[in-house]
Amino acid sequence: MSELVGNVLVGQSGGPTSVINASVAGIVAEALNHECIEEIYGTLNGVLGLLQEDLVDLASESQQQIRALRHTPGAALGTCRYKLKKQADFDRVLEVFKAHNIRYFFYIGGNDSADTVRIVSEQAHSSGYPIRCLHIPKTIDNDLVGNDHTPGFPSAARFVVQAFIGANLDNASLPGIYVGVVMGRHAGFLTAASALARKFPGDGPHLIYLPERTFDPERFVAQVKDAQDRHGRCVVAVSEGVHDADGAPILAKLAPGAERDPHGNVQLSGTGALADLLCALIRDRLGIKRIRGDTFGYLQRSFAGCVSDVDQREAREVGEAAFQFARTHERDGSVRIKRVGDYAVDYELGPLEAVAAKTRVMEDGLISPAGTDVTEAFDAYLRPLLGSDLPQAHRLRAKPVPKRLRAG
Amino acid sequence: MSELVGNVLVGQSGGPTSVINASVAGIVAEALNHECIEEIYGTLNGVLGLLQEDLVDLASESQQQIRALRHTPGAALGTCRYKLKKQADFDRVLEVFKAHNIRYFFYIGGNDSADTVRIVSEQAHSSGYPIRCLHIPKTIDNDLVGNDHTPGFPSAARFVVQAFIGANLDNASLPGIYVGVVMGRHAGFLTAASALARKFPGDGPHLIYLPERTFDPERFVAQVKDAQDRHGRCVVAVSEGVHDADGAPILAKLAPGAERDPHGNVQLSGTGALADLLCALIRDRLGIKRIRGDTFGYLQRSFAGCVSDVDQREAREVGEAAFQFARTHERDGSVRIKRVGDYAVDYELGPLEAVAAKTRVMEDGLISPAGTDVTEAFDAYLRPLLGSDLPQAHRLRAKPVPKRLRAG
Repeated sequence: MSELVGNVLVGQSGGPTSVINASVAGIVAEALNHECIEEIYGTLNGVLGLLQEDLVDLASESQQQIRALRHTPGAALGTCRYKLKKQADFDRVLEVFKAHNIRYFFYIGGNDSADTVRIVSEQAHSSGYPIRCLHIPKTIDNDLVGNDHTPGFPSAARFVVQAFIGANLDNASLPGIYVGVVMGRHAGFLTAASALARKFPGDGPHLIYLPERTFDPERFVAQVKDAQDRHGRCVVAVSEGVHDADGAPILAKLAPGAERDPHGNVQLSGTGALADLLCALIRDRLGIKRIRGDTFGYLQRSFAGCVSDVDQREAREVGEAAFQFARTHERDGSVRIKRVGDYAVDYELGPLEAVAAKTRVMEDGLISPAGTDVTEAFDAYLRPLLGSDLPQAHRLRAKPVPKRLRAG
Repeated sequence: MSELVGNVLVGQSGGPTSVINASVAGIVAEALNHECIEEIYGTLNGVLGLLQEDLVDLASESQQQIRALRHTPGAALGTCRYKLKKQADFDRVLEVFKAHNIRYFFYIGGNDSADTVRIVSEQAHSSGYPIRCLHIPKTIDNDLVGNDHTPGFPSAARFVVQAFIGANLDNASLPGIYVGVVMGRHAGFLTAASALARKFPGDGPHLIYLPERTFDPERFVAQVKDAQDRHGRCVVAVSEGVHDADGAPILAKLAPGAERDPHGNVQLSGTGALADLLCALIRDRLGIKRIRGDTFGYLQRSFAGCVSDVDQREAREVGEAAFQFARTHERDGSVRIKRVGDYAVDYELGPLEAVAAKTRVMEDGLISPAGTDVTEAFDAYLRPLLGSDLPQAHRLRAKPVPKRLRAG
């Protein structure tokens, strides 16, 4: 098959991240270099824009604008969670591809988006329409199979680290219990990142609860009490996805009336309920007065000005690599990130089936035997991803002044 | 009265901020320059350390360590919310002052802390003990009377701005309703800061609810619907302190079982309840599907790596100024920040009574007539405080590609 000549279409899908625009910028910058590309289009709101023929002209944007996007969180093209299911949808997508001579389709997203690319690829090829369809990884959950890590995760992890550096210092200033709830329904990578906020002995988080391990409210209360006894305070990181032995979310267990989506999944993000329920549990059971809970919510994936430079560079490179693979490899696939040094990465083109609709969770070697902390392997895994100039906490050595009075 | 010769004692009080340590650093650095100062002590956990004679030696810390503190959020000396009330407390404080030859007492905090300084000052002088007692302003709420603004507020405001820049982009990517709850029981400055996140027409926050105005749930629902109709989405900033016409917190009204402190005040921070209740209200009344609420919680006062350089400099300078006032003015007082240019400040020594136990709220000229936005005067007031290198959002101009098909 000779090189495809025609137009590029780029789409963004699923939850936005701090660097998902950098991948668009990478594709556009790279595609502009090649004679085989005539136009570079974006689809608004992912496949929804494809179905509605809502396309925009990315090549007409100034290069300056495209570069500036690399530093802007959120999905500049808009995104969606729509799944292509009906034959009418498939036909419409092909119709739009043909009408606009789309020969390169790039879709940036998580495992559901990879599945969308797989379906589009199958439909196009079975109908004999020549096109390259590539999935570009993105998710703050870091739950894509076959990737060392996924763009978006390092910046979100950096947010969690910076948040817990501060939460630990705040909690040390006014001691009590602090519960910070972190995103991640199935994979605990983002919650585990909180461990890298620690610098000095005694620093929190003192307990980390991941969805990879069963959450037992009784054991949780006992462990908080133990940490409180040892440190006079306790900082806890909890994944929104913690669940009981049967896999039922703790949120649903503690609050049977919790909101559910049409698939019956309990809504975990965009609500402070889990943090509040865990705080109430500690208050009721331990009688500790100062208990505070925060839910990091959407801040962790969108906060402007908290980006890992490593993440930003890789998000752009994964877009560039996607275009190069599309031009030089005669197959569709998903770009994946492979760690090849300490610290260096390579990009590969893997099969769509390997990543589509599958979920990676934290490997056992990354979780401490007790289940409430991470291992040194996790620390070594995450540290290079956090980027440069991570804020550093300092503290007083606090040499005591000898007392001169009897106790007051 | 001649210059007092003796020791300095520094304490931190109330809620920590991102720059409260910079004020300690300012006092220590300045005090080290003067022969009249023999030792520089810190009291652990504010007046609690005074009562328990828990003092630490700040002059023995390396200058490097003191400088590094300027960039570390939280209160390095620890803090407290303890109020001196009993005569036994007053006597004990004086006893500790005398035992350690404390001749300069600096207490960094809000209006309650100013009241503590006022009491200590009165007690010391009525007993004939020569000492200078100074209050140094600090609060993210920006609610100290007589100050243009207070250290800690600009950095917290910067956090709120960066959070809403991101929240607006995230919400534009996946349209729906977003409610962000911001700290501030009585003063809406921090919530109002969200307005400065806007850059392009149509950017959120589209509605801002301040404790300076009565919150009517019915009107709230109608205003959200209106914004949704106009923008296809709606980003809302709400102060945790919003209340009804009788002054009752909305949180207490919507959730009668909300946690209360020993004084009967509803606990507003460290819980996601208000955001969840407002989201439920919108869901029930408007039937909109995608509604998310975040409570910024303790992140807004402690997040490591989100500091206004203007705030950091002023927090240090207000500490330096405090020491200079204490050495050269023969009266106790509260240091206050006065704006003298665009943008420049001076520091003055005001009376303790002017700030102690009083609360400043947003002046009417800073709030839009409709009550759900700020004025240009507020924008001009806040912008120079946010510091340099504020992250900037960019967006695609998104020139549409002409459609070639009938609607799908």
